[in-house]
Amino acid sequence: VSEVRRIAGGLWPAVLTPFEESGAPALDVFEQLVDTLIREGVDGLYLLGSTGQGPAMPAPQRKQVLERGVAVAAGRVPVMVHVGAISTRESIELAEHAASAGADAVSSVPPIYFPSGPDAVFEHYRRIAAATELPFYPYHHAMFGDAVLRDADYPRRLLEIPHIAGMKVTITDLYVFGVLERATAGRLRLFSGADELLCHAALSGAVGAIGTSYNLWGPACKAARSAIVGGDFDGARRFMAAFQSAIAEILATGDFYGFLRSAMKLKYDLDIGPGQSPSSFAKTSWSCEDVARLVSAVDEAVELPAGSS
Amino acid sequence: VSEVRRIAGGLWPAVLTPFEESGAPALDVFEQLVDTLIREGVDGLYLLGSTGQGPAMPAPQRKQVLERGVAVAAGRVPVMVHVGAISTRESIELAEHAASAGADAVSSVPPIYFPSGPDAVFEHYRRIAAATELPFYPYHHAMFGDAVLRDADYPRRLLEIPHIAGMKVTITDLYVFGVLERATAGRLRLFSGADELLCHAALSGAVGAIGTSYNLWGPACKAARSAIVGGDFDGARRFMAAFQSAIAEILATGDFYGFLRSAMKLKYDLDIGPGQSPSSFAKTSWSCEDVARLVSAVDEAVELPAGSS
Amino acid sequence: VSEVRRIAGGLWPAVLTPFEESGAPALDVFEQLVDTLIREGVDGLYLLGSTGQGPAMPAPQRKQVLERGVAVAAGRVPVMVHVGAISTRESIELAEHAASAGADAVSSVPPIYFPSGPDAVFEHYRRIAAATELPFYPYHHAMFGDAVLRDADYPRRLLEIPHIAGMKVTITDLYVFGVLERATAGRLRLFSGADELLCHAALSGAVGAIGTSYNLWGPACKAARSAIVGGDFDGARRFMAAFQSAIAEILATGDFYGFLRSAMKLKYDLDIGPGQSPSSFAKTSWSCEDVARLVSAVDEAVELPAGSS
Amino acid sequence: VSEVRRIAGGLWPAVLTPFEESGAPALDVFEQLVDTLIREGVDGLYLLGSTGQGPAMPAPQRKQVLERGVAVAAGRVPVMVHVGAISTRESIELAEHAASAGADAVSSVPPIYFPSGPDAVFEHYRRIAAATELPFYPYHHAMFGDAVLRDADYPRRLLEIPHIAGMKVTITDLYVFGVLERATAGRLRLFSGADELLCHAALSGAVGAIGTSYNLWGPACKAARSAIVGGDFDGARRFMAAFQSAIAEILATGDFYGFLRSAMKLKYDLDIGPGQSPSSFAKTSWSCEDVARLVSAVDEAVELPAGSS
Repeated sequence: VSEVRRIAGGLWPAVLTPFEESGAPALDVFEQLVDTLIREGVDGLYLLGSTGQGPAMPAPQRKQVLERGVAVAAGRVPVMVHVGAISTRESIELAEHAASAGADAVSSVPPIYFPSGPDAVFEHYRRIAAATELPFYPYHHAMFGDAVLRDADYPRRLLEIPHIAGMKVTITDLYVFGVLERATAGRLRLFSGADELLCHAALSGAVGAIGTSYNLWGPACKAARSAIVGGDFDGARRFMAAFQSAIAEILATGDFYGFLRSAMKLKYDLDIGPGQSPSSFAKTSWSCEDVARLVSAVDEAVELPAGSS
Repeated sequence: VSEVRRIAGGLWPAVLTPFEESGAPALDVFEQLVDTLIREGVDGLYLLGSTGQGPAMPAPQRKQVLERGVAVAAGRVPVMVHVGAISTRESIELAEHAASAGADAVSSVPPIYFPSGPDAVFEHYRRIAAATELPFYPYHHAMFGDAVLRDADYPRRLLEIPHIAGMKVTITDLYVFGVLERATAGRLRLFSGADELLCHAALSGAVGAIGTSYNLWGPACKAARSAIVGGDFDGARRFMAAFQSAIAEILATGDFYGFLRSAMKLKYDLDIGPGQSPSSFAKTSWSCEDVARLVSAVDEAVELPAGSS
Repeated sequence: VSEVRRIAGGLWPAVLTPFEESGAPALDVFEQLVDTLIREGVDGLYLLGSTGQGPAMPAPQRKQVLERGVAVAAGRVPVMVHVGAISTRESIELAEHAASAGADAVSSVPPIYFPSGPDAVFEHYRRIAAATELPFYPYHHAMFGDAVLRDADYPRRLLEIPHIAGMKVTITDLYVFGVLERATAGRLRLFSGADELLCHAALSGAVGAIGTSYNLWGPACKAARSAIVGGDFDGARRFMAAFQSAIAEILATGDFYGFLRSAMKLKYDLDIGPGQSPSSFAKTSWSCEDVARLVSAVDEAVELPAGSS
Repeated sequence: VSEVRRIAGGLWPAVLTPFEESGAPALDVFEQLVDTLIREGVDGLYLLGSTGQGPAMPAPQRKQVLERGVAVAAGRVPVMVHVGAISTRESIELAEHAASAGADAVSSVPPIYFPSGPDAVFEHYRRIAAATELPFYPYHHAMFGDAVLRDADYPRRLLEIPHIAGMKVTITDLYVFGVLERATAGRLRLFSGADELLCHAALSGAVGAIGTSYNLWGPACKAARSAIVGGDFDGARRFMAAFQSAIAEILATGDFYGFLRSAMKLKYDLDIGPGQSPSSFAKTSWSCEDVARLVSAVDEAVELPAGSS
C-alpha cells in the first residue's frame, strides 16, 4: 500500500450516493461529488454506508458505485467501503468485489433486522473480514445498543477478528468510547461517527471522524477538529455550539435528507436526487433562505486555515 | 375471492423457507412443508416473513418461493406474503408480483434499518398497499418499539392505508393489543405474533395467530386456541405452562434456529437447511433426546380433538 | 394463623390512603374505605403500596395507617403491608412494626432511587424479610425493568429469601410471568399487579391480583376473574375489552388520580383527598358525566353473581 | 450576596455524608471532610445529593447536616443543597429550612418513584423553587430519561420556574447538553454531573462540574478542567484516558461505594462509614494496593499548578 493510502485518521465523509428518479445511482453526479470532496481536503472516503444508502441498494448497484468511487479517488485518498447487508452471504460477496476493485478497507455494521446474540455478531464480522486481505473496520451504531460495547469481553473478541484495523463507532456516550479506546489501545484506530460530537470525541481518543455532515461542511469540520486538537478550546467550543444548534434545528423538521438535498444543490450545485429508503421520503419543502442560513451558520463558525478555498 | 380464501383468522404458520447449502431456496422441501402444514389443518400460510427469511433473500428468490407456495396451497388455504425490505421500491416490486402470482394478501414490516419517523412509516405502508388491490396487513413487531402503537392517532392513520384489512401484531403487552383492537374494532382483523402468548392474545381480541412455532406444533397450538376460546381454561393454562417452559428452555440456548432445524427433521423428516441470516448461524448441537423431549412436551400438553391425526 | 387469614390468592385492592388537606392521613375515611372493601368481598388488603402512597409518607404515619387497617379488618381478610422505602433501615423498622401490629404479611419493592445491582437488591430483600417471622412478598414493578426477571438465576435467589411466600409481579409481559411461575412452581404464590391484564394473568398461573382498580371496581373485577377461570371466555373477553378501554381513556388524560378521587366520591361517597406525590397533583377537572360513564362502563361489563349487592 | 458566594461555576464535589454505624450522620467527620475540600480549592459544595444520600435520610438529619455544612463553609465557598424527596411537601420543608439556615442555592431531582408526566415534574419544581428566594437548580439525571431534555418545549418551561438560575445535568449525551445550553443561553448556568466526561462537557458549554469523584480527586480534576479550557488538549486527553479507565475498573467491581470508603480513608484518613442505601451495601473487600494504585493513577495523570499542595 502506498503511503498516501494508509489509513491514519482525519475527516472522512460518509459519502452520499446520488440517485436518478428511476432509483438507479447517478454515477456522474457521484463522480463530481467525490472529486469535490477530495479537492476540499477530506482525508478519506467512506462509501455506501447508511448515508450512501448501500443497504437499500441491490448488490450490482453497490458494486458499480464502488468501482466509480475508486476510479475517481485514483489513490488521492483511501477508500473504505461499507458492505453490511441483511444476508452475511451478500456482505461477503461485496467484500470480495471490493478487494478486487481496489478499495483500501472494508467495513460492516452488525447483523441487520434479525436479532442476533453476541456469538452471531462476531461470527458475522469474522466471515466478512476473513473473505479478503483488506483491513476490516466494524461499524457499531447506537441503534444496535451499547450494551455490547460495555461488555468486558468485547475488546478481546474484537481483536480476534481477522484483519481488524479499527472501528467506526457511532455512539454518543464518549465514556464508553474512551474505555473501548483504552482497552484496544495501540491496536485499533477508532473513528467517531457522531458528527454532533466531532470535537468531543477527540478527547476520548478518536483518531478521526466519519459522518454525513462532512459531505456539506468538510472544510469547516476539519478546521474545528484541528482547533480542538491544536489547543484552540474557545474556537472549538464556538464551532460546536453553532454546529449542534444547526443540527438540532434540522432534525426538528424530521427531514434531514431534504435539507441535505437542498443544501448540496445550493452550495455545490449537485443534485443528489431522491433517496432510496423511507427515511429520505420528502416531507417538507425547505426554503432557500433557511438552507442558506444553516449552511452559513456552520461554515462561518470556525476560521479556515489560510490558503483554503 | 372464493369463500375458502377469505381471511377469517385462526392459526397460521409463519412458514419456514428451507435452503440448500448454496443459499438457494430448497423448493422441493418447501413444497413438502407447505403440503404437510395444510394437511395438518392450519388456517392459512404466512410466507417469507422473518421466519421465512424473506428480508435476507434477493427479490428473484422471494418470487420463486411465493410462486411455489401459491401453487402448492392451490386454494386450500389463503396465502399472505410478506414483502418488507430495506428499500420501499423493492417491497412494491414484490407486492406487484404477489398480486400477479395469485397471493391472497400482502404484509410488510415498517421500514428496516433506516430510522424513520411516523410520517415515513405510514408513507412506506401506503406505497406498498396502494401498489395492488390485495388486502394489506401491516406487520408490527416489538423490535420497532411500541410507542407508536400507544399513539392516540395511530388507529386513525392505520385505517387510512389503502386496502388495509388487518394487522400482524407481535408485541407482548396485550393491553396495548387490546386497546388497538377496540380502537379499530370491526374494521381490522388482528393476528397475534407472540407465539408464547397464543391463548392470552385471544382475550384481547386477536382473531388468529401467526408464528414460527406453528411450523412444528400446529395441531397442538390450534387445539390450545380452541380450548381457551371454548371455555376450557384449565386445559389452556396447562398448555401455556408447558409451551412457555419449552420456549424458555430453547431460547436460553441462544439457538432457536438450530432447535427448529433438528425438530423439523425429527418430527417431519424435513431438512430446512442452513438459514440465511446471522441469527441462524449454528451454535450448538442439539441432542436427539432434548429435541424429542421438547417436541413432545408441547405436543402432549393439550388434548387433540378426536379424529385429528 | 387462623384459616381465614391464610393468603390463598384472589382479588386484593392496593388500598388507597385518604389524606387531609394538611397532608396527614384521613384515618376515619380510611376506616370506612377498608370496611366497604371487605363488605364488597375482596379477598385481602394490600396497604401502603404505591397506590396507598406509603413511600411518600413519613414512617410514623405509615404505622398509624397500618394499625387502623388491621383493627378494621379484624381478621375478616388478611392484611399485607408494603414497607418499601429509600432506606433499607426504614423498611426494616416498618416491617418490625407490622409484625407487632398484627399484619399477616410484609411486602417490599426493590431499592428505590439509588441504582442497585442484583446483589444489593437481594440483600435489601433479605434484610427486610429476616426482620420478622411474617411471610414476605417481594413486589416487582416494571419500572424496575424486567431484565432481572429473565435472569436464569433469579428464581433460585428468590427462593433463598427468608420467609418468602409469594410475590407481587407488576409486569405486562405474561410470558415472563409464566416462566417465573413455572420456575418457582408450588413454592410461591404469584399475584399479578397489572390490572389491565387481570384475566390474562390467570392464564400464566397468577393465583390472584393486587391493584388500584379494585378500590373502585372490586366486585366486577372479581366476577371477571371468576368468569375466565370458570370457562366463560366470552364474558371475560367482553369485560377486558370494556376495562382496557376505560383504562386507556383515563390514562390519556394523564390524571388517573383525579379520576379515582372523583369516582370514589361518586360511587362510595368517600373523599380520598389530595395525594402526596407529584403523580397525584390535580391536572384536570373531571365532569360528573364522564366519571359516571366510565364507572358504569366497567361495572356493567360483567354479570355479577346472584346475591351480590 | 457577597461576591465570594456568587455561583460562577467551577469544580464542586457532591459531598459525601459520613455515617455512624447506627445510621446517624457522623457530623464531626463531615466537618473535617468539608474543611479539607475547601482547603484543597473546590469552588463550591453540593450537599445531600445522591452522593450525600440525602434522599435516604429522614428530614431532621438532612437539616443537621446542612447546618453543619454552612457553618464550616463559613462563606468561603457557596453551598447548594439538594432537597429532592419522594414527597414534594418534604422537599418544600427542606427548602424553607435551607433558606433560613443560610444555604446559597437549592437543588432538586424530578419526582422520585411515582411516575410523573411533564406537567407534574414542572409543578414539583415550581412548588419547591417558589418556597424560598434562593436560586433554584433542577437536577436532571439520566435515570429520569433524556426524552424530556429533547422536548422542544423544555427550555421554555424550565425558564418559567421561579428563581431558576442553572441546572445540574447528569447525562452522557453532550449533544443534548449542548443544545439545552444554547436554548437557555445566557440565562442558566449548566453544571455537568457526568464525572467521566468532565472535560468533554466543557466543550458543550458546561460552566462547571458537580460530582462524586471530586471528594477524592478534587485538585486533579480541577487541573484537568483548567487544562482543556486553557488549550492543553493533550494534557486533558491524557487525564481523561486515565480517569475513564480508573472509573471503568472501579465500576466493574460493582462496589463504587466500597472503593470510595477505602480511598477516602487512605488518602485523607476520613472514615465515611456505612452508606444508607442498598447501593452502598459492602460487596467486596478492596485491597490497599488496588485502592492506592487507582487513587494515584488519577492523581498523577495531570500536572497540578505550581503552589498547589
